[in-house]
Amino acid sequence: MMADKRGSTMEIMGSATRDGGEEAGSGGTSGMRTVETLLRLLPMGLCIVALLVMLKNVQTNEFGSLSYSNLGAFRYLVHANGVCAGYSLLTAVVAGMPRRSTMSRAWTFFLLDQFLTYIILGAGAVSTEVVYLAYKGDQAVTWSEACDSFGGFCRRAVASIAITFAVVLCYAALSLISSYRLFSKYDAPPVHAHSSTKGIENDAVFHN
Amino acid sequence: MMADKRGSTMEIMGSATRDGGEEAGSGGTSGMRTVETLLRLLPMGLCIVALLVMLKNVQTNEFGSLSYSNLGAFRYLVHANGVCAGYSLLTAVVAGMPRRSTMSRAWTFFLLDQFLTYIILGAGAVSTEVVYLAYKGDQAVTWSEACDSFGGFCRRAVASIAITFAVVLCYAALSLISSYRLFSKYDAPPVHAHSSTKGIENDAVFHN
Repeated sequence: MMADKRGSTMEIMGSATRDGGEEAGSGGTSGMRTVETLLRLLPMGLCIVALLVMLKNVQTNEFGSLSYSNLGAFRYLVHANGVCAGYSLLTAVVAGMPRRSTMSRAWTFFLLDQFLTYIILGAGAVSTEVVYLAYKGDQAVTWSEACDSFGGFCRRAVASIAITFAVVLCYAALSLISSYRLFSKYDAPPVHAHSSTKGIENDAVFHN
Repeated sequence: MMADKRGSTMEIMGSATRDGGEEAGSGGTSGMRTVETLLRLLPMGLCIVALLVMLKNVQTNEFGSLSYSNLGAFRYLVHANGVCAGYSLLTAVVAGMPRRSTMSRAWTFFLLDQFLTYIILGAGAVSTEVVYLAYKGDQAVTWSEACDSFGGFCRRAVASIAITFAVVLCYAALSLISSYRLFSKYDAPPVHAHSSTKGIENDAVFHN
C-alpha cells in the first residue's frame, strides 16, 4: 500500500530489495555491493589526502616554527584519518567480495561504522575548535591569535579539516547503509502474507 | 536457524518482534515503548543538569573574571544541551503514545536521532579540547594554562562535559533503536516462506 514511497526512499540504496524476497537486505545484489564498495574507497582517498595535508603542515618564520605536532587536536586528526583510511580499505575489500552477508558480519560492520563515524567527527570537531581559537584568540584566557603570525599554517589546517568533514559525510551514509543491512534482517515475515498468528515466524526469521 | 543469537542480541531492545509477524518492528509492544520513552527522558534530565552546571560556571579572582560565555565552545555546549533537552522531551511524549509507528515517523526519528547524536558529540568534543588546552596550555602558540588561575571554573566545566558524554551514550543507544525501528520495516517478506519469485513482494512490503 505504500509501495511508491518505498520506491523513492530506497533509490539511494540501490536495488537490494528488488530481486526476490529471500535475498532482500542480505547484500546479495551486485549493484548495492558496488555502491557500498565505492562509498568505502572514497573516504579512504579523502582520509589519505587530509592526513598528508596535515602531516606536511609546517611553517617557520620570524616568530618561530609551528608544526601540526605542536597541537594535540591536529595529532588526533592525523591518527584518526590514518585509522579511518585503513578501516575503509579493509571493509571495501570485504564488502566487495561476492559472499553472502552473515549476521555477525552485519553487526560488526554496523558497530564499527558507527564508531568510526564518531571518531572522525570528533577529530573534525576538536580541530575546528583549535583553528577557530587560532583565528579569533580568546582575551578572557589570554590566548593570542596565532593565525596572525602563521597564516599559511592555518589555511592548510582548514583545508585538511574540510576534507575530514567530507569523510564524516561519507561515513554518515555508510552508517545508514550498514544499519539498513543489519536491521532489515530482523523483521519477522509471516509465512502467509496476511497471517499474524503468534509463533509462526520462528523458522523464517532470517533470510540467509 | 539462528534464532538463539537473535534472541540474545535483541534482548536489549525489548520484545518487539515476539508478538506475531505483522506487528514486528512497528513499535506495537508496550515493553519496548516504555524502554524507549525512559531512554529519551534520561538524556533530557542529564542535558538540563549539564546545561545548568555550565550556565552557573563563573569564577572571579585576582586574575580577573571568567565565565562560560567567554569561550565559544562552552556557549555551543549550553545551546546543544538546551536543544537536546527539548528534543528529548518532545520525542519522549511522541514515543510514549500508544500509536502505531508510520514510515514517515520512523524516518524522522531516525534522521533526527542521528543528527542530534552528532550535534551533542561535537559539543562534547570541542569543549573537551578547550578544557584540555586550558589545563595543559600550548607553548608553540603561546596559549597559557588558564586552569592554574581558574581551577574551580575548569573542574565545573569538566563535570558538565562528563554529563554531556553520558548524553552521547544515551543518544548512541537511541540511534540504534530508531534505526532498528526504521529498517526492520524494509524487509521484503515472501508471500510463501520458500518462494523467491520476482515481484511478488510488492503488496506485502510493509507491515503497517
